[in-house]
Amino acid sequence: MNGRITLAHGDGGEQAHRLIQDVFIAAFGDSSAPMMDAAIQPVSGAKLAVTTDSFVVQPIFFPGGNIGKLAVAGTVNDLIVSGAEPLYLTCGFILEEGFSLKELQVIVKSMAEEAAKSNVRIVAGDTKVVERGACDGIFINTTGIGVIREERQLHPTAITEGDSVIVTGTIGDHGVSIIAARNELGLRTDVLSDCASLTAMLSDALISTSTIRIMRDPTRGGLATSLVEIAEDFGVTVELDEEEIPVRPDVQGACELLGFEPIYLANEGKAVIIVSQSEEMQLLETLRRHPEGANAAVIGRVTNTTKGQLLLRTVFGSSRRLHRLSGVLLPRIC
Amino acid sequence: MNGRITLAHGDGGEQAHRLIQDVFIAAFGDSSAPMMDAAIQPVSGAKLAVTTDSFVVQPIFFPGGNIGKLAVAGTVNDLIVSGAEPLYLTCGFILEEGFSLKELQVIVKSMAEEAAKSNVRIVAGDTKVVERGACDGIFINTTGIGVIREERQLHPTAITEGDSVIVTGTIGDHGVSIIAARNELGLRTDVLSDCASLTAMLSDALISTSTIRIMRDPTRGGLATSLVEIAEDFGVTVELDEEEIPVRPDVQGACELLGFEPIYLANEGKAVIIVSQSEEMQLLETLRRHPEGANAAVIGRVTNTTKGQLLLRTVFGSSRRLHRLSGVLLPRIC
Repeated sequence: MNGRITLAHGDGGEQAHRLIQDVFIAAFGDSSAPMMDAAIQPVSGAKLAVTTDSFVVQPIFFPGGNIGKLAVAGTVNDLIVSGAEPLYLTCGFILEEGFSLKELQVIVKSMAEEAAKSNVRIVAGDTKVVERGACDGIFINTTGIGVIREERQLHPTAITEGDSVIVTGTIGDHGVSIIAARNELGLRTDVLSDCASLTAMLSDALISTSTIRIMRDPTRGGLATSLVEIAEDFGVTVELDEEEIPVRPDVQGACELLGFEPIYLANEGKAVIIVSQSEEMQLLETLRRHPEGANAAVIGRVTNTTKGQLLLRTVFGSSRRLHRLSGVLLPRIC
Repeated sequence: MNGRITLAHGDGGEQAHRLIQDVFIAAFGDSSAPMMDAAIQPVSGAKLAVTTDSFVVQPIFFPGGNIGKLAVAGTVNDLIVSGAEPLYLTCGFILEEGFSLKELQVIVKSMAEEAAKSNVRIVAGDTKVVERGACDGIFINTTGIGVIREERQLHPTAITEGDSVIVTGTIGDHGVSIIAARNELGLRTDVLSDCASLTAMLSDALISTSTIRIMRDPTRGGLATSLVEIAEDFGVTVELDEEEIPVRPDVQGACELLGFEPIYLANEGKAVIIVSQSEEMQLLETLRRHPEGANAAVIGRVTNTTKGQLLLRTVFGSSRRLHRLSGVLLPRIC
């Protein structure tokens, strides 16, 4: 489909109607739902999980994904790390006048494919068009709705001294792939973004393990910021072993070159999980059965349950306290 | 609160954490929910309604409202016209570097007030910051979740010849107020946007009337586009009586001056309702008891249930067919 987005595509009339038919319904299916003001969904679970995220990543196409794949995977992952089964997604598009319809179709197709992997339905949508220069190409909001099932509850208040901290794979891949795709810092690398939905792997983990305390997806702010939040929210000390944290050699190299720490770089297909020490091996085996979990590793322990802080035992044997990411690292990473 | 949005506010670290605490939680309350990846909500109803909308209105402050009030009212109204009881809202903010923190606080406060009117809770949020020039100040996505209760179901397939078409008040107010606020077309007028949540009035209508077939909120594309959609979706002919459609004299005057038709102008606090003729008076009385419904009127009838079209009987006695809005009327009206 050739052509470009015009302001008329956002005016709620005939052109908007055709855009919905030709692009969105063609990709997402279910001809009535996205046309309605509100999509009517049956719900059987007792507890809902709801999450929302806007995606403004630049560039919109990057090695390993695009803004559409990211918008679905990111929101699905927020649900699954909360222990929810992802069910429904809504999509809100803000398009710049002149945006390519062909690129929009590629993005929307990626969204449909990524949603299918997690078996989630896109049930409502909205498109706004702003004049040239009023936004940068395309922004996508996705809101996800899931249900919390009794058998897959998380137990964050049960965090105990000795619990294991597991990351499901190498960290920093998304951050480095975006830096390279921007061509700004002179970085050349073949690193692909890890952008992926974790529904299958983490559902498997939740079903086969009974003592998962908490899960987070370390996106903006990286692994360090996610673990600082857990440490503060639940008043526990997490001590990481730097040597055990899986980092791809090219990501490590890029970080050394640019002065970044992988532990603060964004990931878009990873989870960090706290589990009882007794189930640590079983969980690792479950994760490693999935391609997204091939490099899963135990990276640290809960060493104290009275003080909320994150410590890093470095390769030199010293220990330092880590804080949230402060200041600007990489704008528009997701 | 003085200061401006910086890129660091969008990086997911310390500054983002403070923005959430000082601005969003200060206004929306409930210190834990907006911090979580997914807000956990109890659900008791059997059927969910979900809707999403992004708001890009320009200017962001206009007579009668601002982008925040609009973002809540618009999404709440999408739920209530679907027959759902609005329960939860999510908010996704895209902010331009340099945006005023004080203006953000005013906007967020309006959102909290408007949500309180409908008794909906803001349960999840997200903030992204883009560099100067990559978006126009502020865009807001809201996604609404409601439940459909047995006793307030709509009956769109029961539309019958003779059914009454009711609009809850004057049309075109929002459109004209935005045109005037833009100062573009030389229009001076005191018209206020009708921007309002219709939860109280339409809940009352749904409870006190048993034969409401369908409701829509005629926003972008106006009353005409909403009724064309109903006509096409359900294969019915709706005939409007131009003389009966309530239009404020200053809106009518502005339209004549500018060459617009009120029936295509956006509304942000109106509903169009199809109800059985036998309950027409009762519904009118119920609507008129609410300030938002003071000018409610019967504006037409369903004249045929085999052909999907919208007809307008003009003040001159002739009848013409209306179509969806085509082309650009007013970009960024909501």
